[in-house]
Amino acid sequence: MSIQNLAADVVARDHRAIARAISLIENESSDAPELIGHLFEHAGRASLIGVTGPPGVGKSTLVDCLTTAWRSRDRTVGVIAVDPTSPFSGGALLGDRIRMQSHTDDDGVYVRSMATRGHLGGVATATSDAAVVLDAAGMDIVIVETVGVGQGQIDIARTADVSIVVTVPGMGDDVQAIKAGIMEIADVFVVNKADAAGADRAVAEIESALSLREYAPGTWRPPVLKTEATSCEGVTELVDAVERFGARHPRDSQRRQDRARVRLRETLLRRLAERLDRDDNARGALEEAAGQVSRGEVDPYTAVTRILERLT
Amino acid sequence: MSIQNLAADVVARDHRAIARAISLIENESSDAPELIGHLFEHAGRASLIGVTGPPGVGKSTLVDCLTTAWRSRDRTVGVIAVDPTSPFSGGALLGDRIRMQSHTDDDGVYVRSMATRGHLGGVATATSDAAVVLDAAGMDIVIVETVGVGQGQIDIARTADVSIVVTVPGMGDDVQAIKAGIMEIADVFVVNKADAAGADRAVAEIESALSLREYAPGTWRPPVLKTEATSCEGVTELVDAVERFGARHPRDSQRRQDRARVRLRETLLRRLAERLDRDDNARGALEEAAGQVSRGEVDPYTAVTRILERLT
Repeated sequence: MSIQNLAADVVARDHRAIARAISLIENESSDAPELIGHLFEHAGRASLIGVTGPPGVGKSTLVDCLTTAWRSRDRTVGVIAVDPTSPFSGGALLGDRIRMQSHTDDDGVYVRSMATRGHLGGVATATSDAAVVLDAAGMDIVIVETVGVGQGQIDIARTADVSIVVTVPGMGDDVQAIKAGIMEIADVFVVNKADAAGADRAVAEIESALSLREYAPGTWRPPVLKTEATSCEGVTELVDAVERFGARHPRDSQRRQDRARVRLRETLLRRLAERLDRDDNARGALEEAAGQVSRGEVDPYTAVTRILERLT
Repeated sequence: MSIQNLAADVVARDHRAIARAISLIENESSDAPELIGHLFEHAGRASLIGVTGPPGVGKSTLVDCLTTAWRSRDRTVGVIAVDPTSPFSGGALLGDRIRMQSHTDDDGVYVRSMATRGHLGGVATATSDAAVVLDAAGMDIVIVETVGVGQGQIDIARTADVSIVVTVPGMGDDVQAIKAGIMEIADVFVVNKADAAGADRAVAEIESALSLREYAPGTWRPPVLKTEATSCEGVTELVDAVERFGARHPRDSQRRQDRARVRLRETLLRRLAERLDRDDNARGALEEAAGQVSRGEVDPYTAVTRILERLT
């Protein structure tokens, strides 16, 4: 099948075509640029929702609830769960590839775990391209689920149209860390496993951290919601909050531009790396320097400075 | 304190100086190149041992046993545990920063968990530099512990002087994945938690995978060992196997050169990225393209091709 035909099948929301398209992206196929070129004009309508939280907080169960909730509001939903690559699991270290069985018969839902090779931290490129596929396939909502590991995943969360940060009670010092690291990322905070001990304290800690920040009148202050994903309790309120944020930030062009910049920068650096790997002169310089460093003749930083001087 | 004095204190194996030096590296300080420049001439004697395995297989307990075993053979031991960065934990997602308390009074042991920011997958650079610090501080053995996530960590494992791959019984399909992904990396396989059900089967599966490969007479066939890290059972045999491999591959220059190349390439790409971020022309081109992509006027691959044409 030609890439053009594949793209047409994706636009017709053929699930097997979607699967094949995302696999091309995941495997960094040289056909990916052509595929995205065909799909791009059909994309741009979906809302990208980031769901970020450490392993074990119940993100995938919560995403399942969100999917059901949006389906009941007649929105189609695509899900991309980003996993760091591991040689031990052949891809999904933290994720669960068999999920959301409840939606398997629903043409309006497509769920996909995605491993990224991460040579150069290609998470933003892979995720953006997969989102273009689901967007072009007519999904109204595209949820990207990450564990927030590495700059790429943090950038995805930061530049989603709406960013949900999930935590659970009893993370203790980690809530401290959230203050420092992820406060700026969240448009909506969720404390999942709300029936566990310490849920109210977790909410209070996040609220207290938020209260240290200045919110000008009329600006969005991230709400802190409690959910119980195993029963989908609190998820209606979460969807309401997400839609409220979306309504106040229609087509937030600055954030979409940030997202595009993050992604373009990553793709650009990958291209530069590919050029380097193909350039005989650069490869020779690298090999010679590697010999010198491994023999202890020159330290690595000096060696790199010399290579750069030689190449430019 | 000047960086030169700090380097001198590292060489004198002052533990606070070692801690400070590794923090400079971890934080990607602009002083890191000078520091490594001073230390490099004092390094090159340590054996770099990679210990790689998924979370939960007992790597840190096993590394604790290895440390004790090598100390009893009068070798000094440095440990670097690499964690993927997470905003939720302020660094150590999978690791445990409070470990190996048993060695705290021993000047011949230094243990450090290390977060890497991973902008460009800077794991190889950070790990190599931390290894130079511990090597220059006179550690005979430097153990690098990773979960094998991402190309950087796999490259570290692949290019260590000796690479130990750890698994546990009952990983099921994952052992299948090990066959495909990590068979080439391991010089020694370890099945930890050997008293758990299925340990012999796990060993047999790895042996069976190994038997599909051709080992010319006289070449090293990775042994598959059983350990019980909570009691350090089997660790003497593991140390023996590591030393046997080391004796047969003295100063394996090809592998050290591979290691240097991986690290230099990574540092080189980081420098190129820094240049890009500082170059007004490149930043302008990126911003303009980001606007076009976010407005749906041009697809990201075409945009990057145009930027590259404009810059070169």
